[in-house]
Amino acid sequence: MSTNLTIVNRASVLAILATICAPPLIASAQTVAPTSAPTTLALMPVPSSLALRTGSLTIDSTFRVAVVRHTDARMQRAIARMIPRLEVRTGIPLSHVVSKDSAGATLIIDCNSAGEAVQGYDEDESYSIESGASSITLHAATTVGVIRGLETVLQLVDADSARYFIPAVSVNDTPRFRWRGLLVDVSRHFEPVSAIERTLDGMSAVKLNVLHWHLSDDQGIRVESKRYPKLQKLASDSMYYTRSQIREVVTYARDRGIRVVPEFDMPGHSNAWFAAYPQYASAAGPYSVGDGYIGFKGTFDPTRESVYRFIDGFIGEMSKLFPDAYWHIGGDEVDATEWNANPRIQKYMRAHKLADNAALQAYFNQRMSRILTKHHKHMIGWDEILHPGLPTTTVIQSWRGTQYLAQAAQKGFSGILSAPYYLDAMRSSEYLYGADPLLGDSALTAAETARVLGGEATMWAELVQHGTIDSRIWPRLAAVAERFWSPRNVTDVGDMYRRLGVESVRLEQLGLGQETHTSRFLRRMVNGPDIGPLAELLQFVESANLGQRMGRERVRQATPLVRMADAARPDPPGRWRIMQLVQAVGSSSTMNVAAHDTLQRWFAEWRDLAPRVHAIANRSPLAQSAIPAADALARVSAIGLEALEARRSGIPLAKSWTDSAMVTLKAADQPQGVLHLVVVPAVRQLLVQ
Amino acid sequence: MSTNLTIVNRASVLAILATICAPPLIASAQTVAPTSAPTTLALMPVPSSLALRTGSLTIDSTFRVAVVRHTDARMQRAIARMIPRLEVRTGIPLSHVVSKDSAGATLIIDCNSAGEAVQGYDEDESYSIESGASSITLHAATTVGVIRGLETVLQLVDADSARYFIPAVSVNDTPRFRWRGLLVDVSRHFEPVSAIERTLDGMSAVKLNVLHWHLSDDQGIRVESKRYPKLQKLASDSMYYTRSQIREVVTYARDRGIRVVPEFDMPGHSNAWFAAYPQYASAAGPYSVGDGYIGFKGTFDPTRESVYRFIDGFIGEMSKLFPDAYWHIGGDEVDATEWNANPRIQKYMRAHKLADNAALQAYFNQRMSRILTKHHKHMIGWDEILHPGLPTTTVIQSWRGTQYLAQAAQKGFSGILSAPYYLDAMRSSEYLYGADPLLGDSALTAAETARVLGGEATMWAELVQHGTIDSRIWPRLAAVAERFWSPRNVTDVGDMYRRLGVESVRLEQLGLGQETHTSRFLRRMVNGPDIGPLAELLQFVESANLGQRMGRERVRQATPLVRMADAARPDPPGRWRIMQLVQAVGSSSTMNVAAHDTLQRWFAEWRDLAPRVHAIANRSPLAQSAIPAADALARVSAIGLEALEARRSGIPLAKSWTDSAMVTLKAADQPQGVLHLVVVPAVRQLLVQ
Repeated sequence: MSTNLTIVNRASVLAILATICAPPLIASAQTVAPTSAPTTLALMPVPSSLALRTGSLTIDSTFRVAVVRHTDARMQRAIARMIPRLEVRTGIPLSHVVSKDSAGATLIIDCNSAGEAVQGYDEDESYSIESGASSITLHAATTVGVIRGLETVLQLVDADSARYFIPAVSVNDTPRFRWRGLLVDVSRHFEPVSAIERTLDGMSAVKLNVLHWHLSDDQGIRVESKRYPKLQKLASDSMYYTRSQIREVVTYARDRGIRVVPEFDMPGHSNAWFAAYPQYASAAGPYSVGDGYIGFKGTFDPTRESVYRFIDGFIGEMSKLFPDAYWHIGGDEVDATEWNANPRIQKYMRAHKLADNAALQAYFNQRMSRILTKHHKHMIGWDEILHPGLPTTTVIQSWRGTQYLAQAAQKGFSGILSAPYYLDAMRSSEYLYGADPLLGDSALTAAETARVLGGEATMWAELVQHGTIDSRIWPRLAAVAERFWSPRNVTDVGDMYRRLGVESVRLEQLGLGQETHTSRFLRRMVNGPDIGPLAELLQFVESANLGQRMGRERVRQATPLVRMADAARPDPPGRWRIMQLVQAVGSSSTMNVAAHDTLQRWFAEWRDLAPRVHAIANRSPLAQSAIPAADALARVSAIGLEALEARRSGIPLAKSWTDSAMVTLKAADQPQGVLHLVVVPAVRQLLVQ
Repeated sequence: MSTNLTIVNRASVLAILATICAPPLIASAQTVAPTSAPTTLALMPVPSSLALRTGSLTIDSTFRVAVVRHTDARMQRAIARMIPRLEVRTGIPLSHVVSKDSAGATLIIDCNSAGEAVQGYDEDESYSIESGASSITLHAATTVGVIRGLETVLQLVDADSARYFIPAVSVNDTPRFRWRGLLVDVSRHFEPVSAIERTLDGMSAVKLNVLHWHLSDDQGIRVESKRYPKLQKLASDSMYYTRSQIREVVTYARDRGIRVVPEFDMPGHSNAWFAAYPQYASAAGPYSVGDGYIGFKGTFDPTRESVYRFIDGFIGEMSKLFPDAYWHIGGDEVDATEWNANPRIQKYMRAHKLADNAALQAYFNQRMSRILTKHHKHMIGWDEILHPGLPTTTVIQSWRGTQYLAQAAQKGFSGILSAPYYLDAMRSSEYLYGADPLLGDSALTAAETARVLGGEATMWAELVQHGTIDSRIWPRLAAVAERFWSPRNVTDVGDMYRRLGVESVRLEQLGLGQETHTSRFLRRMVNGPDIGPLAELLQFVESANLGQRMGRERVRQATPLVRMADAARPDPPGRWRIMQLVQAVGSSSTMNVAAHDTLQRWFAEWRDLAPRVHAIANRSPLAQSAIPAADALARVSAIGLEALEARRSGIPLAKSWTDSAMVTLKAADQPQGVLHLVVVPAVRQLLVQ
């Protein structure tokens, strides 16, 4: 049993890096005025324009909110949510009474109008804040703008030793993109309403405005239908949203300035429909709801009129529950096996001059488009639906690659980007932050550029349950949200990570579980409080991505997601920190001693971690999957220690040693079972720099 | 900024102590057979009898549950809750189908009957478990016994490197006391149904059987009444349980083998009633619902017949919602100011020969007793109600001292003990564990002893909100639960703490927040992830108790409970651990080097903590209250370092130095503002040993 008390924890590492890396004290906005005040802004997303002025407003029990000009129930509810958040931030009991009289008020809300009856992507979300020593004025054109601005007001709250205050600032803020969303897949694993609602809370906190609710897939149709009740009886594992729950979620989202765009994926990804209504499939069946994730062939039969009557009836019913102007038809990854095997469908295609399966899907989509128009909906679909004959009001969601977004724009379609924002790909916040909906599309004309409405991150749920979803979405989504909202030139990754750490804590206060996720999961795994070695490992190790993990584990819908890969957080804090240390450490003549010593200590700890992980895994089968990663980390640590010593001493490393180390590092950067080391690029840089 | 990376965390400290203190590998039950198996039982409460045998049952996907003989919907729901808990513990997807055929079943449940239609304190809760290599049989007389036994089955699950298993055991278990409860005060601060329900989950996990629901006090009446609707309109801050929520909680509790005993406190602690119905008070009023905690005089007028008609109507309505045989009338701390000042009441007392206010309360209680009898309820009340004329079916709840429990027993009344179990008194688990309902009452006859039904811990809510309640109740309540359930001679405090650490993690998996409480609160306080110094401090510091804190802080109902004292956990892990280190360290010739070095390191860290706490408090007004405690801890550390060095060197400490140190320690053991150091007794012991 180790008696080593030296534990690297998140807080102390941050404390060191705050010294070493000297992050900017103020947000990297454009018009920030230098100030001697010790104000540390941590706004996320960064506003389009911010000027920090001299002075501040002290928050005390005299704090009062007033609403002048327009108000409405939605705004009142937003204020009623904001005041308790300010109370728990400051510990000060505040008045919950909202006056109409600005005299003596601390926060004055000045709004023009309610905004759109059904929020569209052209809703005016802009707002401005002017705060001084005695009051803050929040101006907005719409209630949605007020909702956005209230989040900024809360984020502006700062403290010194004696008081909480809001610094004197002038903020003018408006989003860069109009469509800023998150897809949540509730088919592969159902998410209870509570999980959806806390996700909406988080989205609103970082000014996202679209919940793309992926309500159907091979593994389940997740809505209650009055007209087609077999859906809730047969087309899922009995977990679905009732009609009243759908209304509740839509209302909850609207209260937070968020649209709800439902997706019912057709004609592929449709197996679950046919467990209830096999007559609309392209083959005879039988069909059952998937409890695995591959091999589903069930596809709607585009050649039957009864299919369109069914879809018309379904959309007719559901369109009343989902007020949004857009309806997502899916349209991705159509498996044509059933079409190819069905002589009647083949005959139909010949008769109607439908040259291939793409043409057949285009025909289906044109029919879908007519049904949607009848029900006053616009169509949105995955980029496979981009065929001739679609109305240009259709929005194309690019998932296979950014080029499809450009193609859509050039053909006159509006589009949104999802390709780089797949959260299950386990990309770092740095990567997600760097992926711009317009990056690399400089060939687009101004008109084409204007058709790029924004983007959506996607939370596919093959390996996500309500117990893990917070850790998969947050805080990474906040980095994506900033990319969608803030000016294009807000790109300082170091400052993003500084603010992301703060934002994640603010999100935690809304009930999101990402900050406590790993420790809770590890305690359950070891059935006790002694999680040290595993917790240390997971500062430098994340889950392999969806594809890698599916290839290495037998996982089906019923498998409890309680393993090491589930306990791990994507982009754990160690990745960015060690990279910063490596970039700071210098070489023999310029050595940063603090960085050197910290790196040396970390490498030594990685080396010592492996036997400790082995010991704990001996008492927990679920922890066994930590062993390959711990062993790989030990190998990386040996390389790191030698490379660091070479830097310190100035004695070059032998090429043969370096070549061999590079081979080891390359292997260590591959998935270790279902885990992945995040520190290899930094150690590699230590070698080559 | 400190670059000290040496963080004492809970896991590593435990790892050390596992080496130093060598806790017993198996629970301290009576009939445990020695075994070479590496089984580490962590049952809590310890069963009355347990024999560990050779062999074990491997848990895999073939695990099946069968119920032979009696079954019912409540048992099926208990099984349906148990299987997913086993799934997330093991990561193995299990069948949710419960068979009636024991052939091939893994867990066979053999039960006689449903038990009582309304669970009483004589419900048979006993059960037995026989487990071998191929199956486990759980025998119980009643469904409640099955519910108890299923918790034990889950607690028996153990693991080695390859598999999860249940060791071969023979358990025969029955509770020592019949009344094992928790009072939850929802008047001073309202608790949402979700908080009550997760509390019930935790109670059932440790085999408690009474929720004493303190539904009324000066600060609010927390039920919806059809008959007296002004109660929900005027007698609270609009937070109350609807009738359907009450039914839901009662059903939820019954499903977990827990009775719900409602308390409506009368004739004192009654201010809130009179905010709605002032005509039943003893003075003219006006009355309002309390938002503070002192100075309330409102008292029912025992001389008016209308008062009894009102109470009769209220109990008549409520008794249908609360099926339990007992009704708690409160009866504590009657402030007689209004009685004394009311000439009509004084005249009535003379006319009816009621010699004093105690006699007037006794008269009131006799009238209450008749009303309760009419509604088929027995009376329970606080020990002040122990006056002549009460039916001996009345249960006396002793809160002012254990002597009142003995008095009641001697006078023929049954009683329960609460005096030592006030959770807001911030006593350690060790203290609570040592307080026995029968300890020190050896003068009682066997018949009198039999009248001691058990006890209740109390969670008064002046300084408790839904955000803090878990941390105040858990895990300490599990130690109390063991005291109430397990044999009297189960008293090994070290083994209790070992198992309490495991139990707290099991409780966390039920949704209770005590394990993540401090870090969540501290992150909010500092508005970011860097909580190091404050988190370290709170390993050795707890909140001052209710009385101390109320005397030092201006707190009212509306005050957000988000301060250092709220973030702190009672009986933090450092207390027991440092005491163990001090007891293990020895002196110069017998020195335990590991214990010495750990103590030395801890003392040095305490010394270095103070400036770090000052620095963090400079950025958070709410953290300012940490400073006196951090400074006191630094003073204690200086004494600890010198005393430790004296131990090591064998050079005695000068008496003048020791005298001075003792004065310093005594001062440090007093509340430091609203915090309290838990390490002073250990350091004192280092001096005197």
